[in-house]
Amino acid sequence: MRDVTADNITDVFMSYMGEGIDPRLKEVLGSLVTHLHAFAREVNLTHEEWNQGIAFLEAAGAISDKERHEFVLLSDVLGLSSLVDMLHSRPEGTSSSVLGPFHISGSPPLAVGGDLRKDFDEPVLLVEGIVKDPDGNPIPGATLDIWQTAPNGLYSSQDPDQDTYSFHGLQTVGADGRYAFTSVRPVEYTVPSDGPVGDILRACGRHPWRPSHLHFIAEAEGFRPLVTEVFPEDDPYLDQDTVFGVRKDLVMRYEEMPAGSFPAEGFELSGKVDEGYLRVRFDLTLVPRD
Amino acid sequence: MRDVTADNITDVFMSYMGEGIDPRLKEVLGSLVTHLHAFAREVNLTHEEWNQGIAFLEAAGAISDKERHEFVLLSDVLGLSSLVDMLHSRPEGTSSSVLGPFHISGSPPLAVGGDLRKDFDEPVLLVEGIVKDPDGNPIPGATLDIWQTAPNGLYSSQDPDQDTYSFHGLQTVGADGRYAFTSVRPVEYTVPSDGPVGDILRACGRHPWRPSHLHFIAEAEGFRPLVTEVFPEDDPYLDQDTVFGVRKDLVMRYEEMPAGSFPAEGFELSGKVDEGYLRVRFDLTLVPRD
Ligand SMILES: [Cu+2]
Ligand SMILES: [Fe+3]
Ligand SMILES: [Fe+3]
Repeated sequence: MRDVTADNITDVFMSYMGEGIDPRLKEVLGSLVTHLHAFAREVNLTHEEWNQGIAFLEAAGAISDKERHEFVLLSDVLGLSSLVDMLHSRPEGTSSSVLGPFHISGSPPLAVGGDLRKDFDEPVLLVEGIVKDPDGNPIPGATLDIWQTAPNGLYSSQDPDQDTYSFHGLQTVGADGRYAFTSVRPVEYTVPSDGPVGDILRACGRHPWRPSHLHFIAEAEGFRPLVTEVFPEDDPYLDQDTVFGVRKDLVMRYEEMPAGSFPAEGFELSGKVDEGYLRVRFDLTLVPRD
Repeated sequence: MRDVTADNITDVFMSYMGEGIDPRLKEVLGSLVTHLHAFAREVNLTHEEWNQGIAFLEAAGAISDKERHEFVLLSDVLGLSSLVDMLHSRPEGTSSSVLGPFHISGSPPLAVGGDLRKDFDEPVLLVEGIVKDPDGNPIPGATLDIWQTAPNGLYSSQDPDQDTYSFHGLQTVGADGRYAFTSVRPVEYTVPSDGPVGDILRACGRHPWRPSHLHFIAEAEGFRPLVTEVFPEDDPYLDQDTVFGVRKDLVMRYEEMPAGSFPAEGFELSGKVDEGYLRVRFDLTLVPRD
């Protein structure tokens, strides 16, 4: 096309696509470019703003490495990651939420009723629930990969003072579908804000905080894997998670349990907890594979 | 917001913007995110496709450095760079076109009628025209920064065998607004296709070629600077410039001039060209500053 104009350039872009290319690539890239062009037209994007955008992308590239994933963080704070999660969540199952950058593979087995608190001197949190299908039937043999922050707000992978698998465990439920473990309250934390994405947050008058949460990956044969998080209803950041991870059905409640009421059996800490503790009951519903 | 959904997440994003932030930032980022979310919904973007997108951005970041600007190239091949150019072109002036990555500062002065061909053994190309305002009046003292490929398809900055300013010159026009120089035909070339952007071109069934062109930056006091390129009408890639730089008014024509007709004076090569040569006449119209 020798007569490219601001009005026809999107069509020209589409006309450059070759014959016989992957139809899904054509659909996705065509849609992306159509919306990108519409954005530039809508705001009448200037050369200076375009330059700022390029400089941002180059800076995000420069700070990225095997550990630091600035483009993932960008997608998170723009809500794209959560949107993709929600587009593929099923209403009949527990909502999915962001995986986040702190998951590590190979967590050690954690028996039903096992303990993650170890030597940390914080009030006990007891978490339990049923892994079930949309009809409410338990799913025997489901596995739950569990991870959370230590009381200092750090995941083990961020914290040289913690063991590798501190506050990580892999639990396999029995015939009743029940999972259960003891831990401590996870705490709120900030996403990395010392890079270009942090500059965007500041320019937008936004904070980098996430509400506290427990992470789960639930898997069972014949079911879609569920990557999710659960959030306490009293967290100060619940209504302003900087990565948009909160869903209505992922909000849980800490029940304050009186001293002397800790279960006498079935937990690694049974017989060792005299004081009051916090209890969360949260069921996870998995959806069968298509 | 504790009830983020695929339908409301764009509104939630907007609601996170702080009070008193720069209104243009809010407008631009709000529009960008609105279109980004609309894209993800429209194609029902999958986690796997999101992963491919992140991997693409990380790869583009990794290959980028002071010399290599993969994100600029991405913007170029998606048509965004040209769209921004066109949004800010004025219909009463010559169209602007992409600057490209090969411009270098500090080109040596080139007298009106001067020569860029030097020792290259190619047919002479004579280029001339008037730098004028939208009413057709010449603009005395306008400067023209001129650059192009050598016959091997390389700019001097890409080619250790060329002098730094080979095929580069800075011409200042006189009272008649006329520029003129001799050179050789520029040749078509490919954008760098050994990186992630090249992978996109291949996946789309697109080639990396640009039609041959002469680059100009025209500047004059009281006028908007013009960054542009001109393209010969017989170039095989004229209708498929991979960076969308061709505009209808930037197409020029090589006139084949007979042996013995080279101007007897006014050119550095006057008296030295007996054979036939090519001639281009192309006027450049600058628009007054607002
Ligand atoms: Cu759009
Ligand atoms: Fe987390
Ligand atoms: Fe060029």
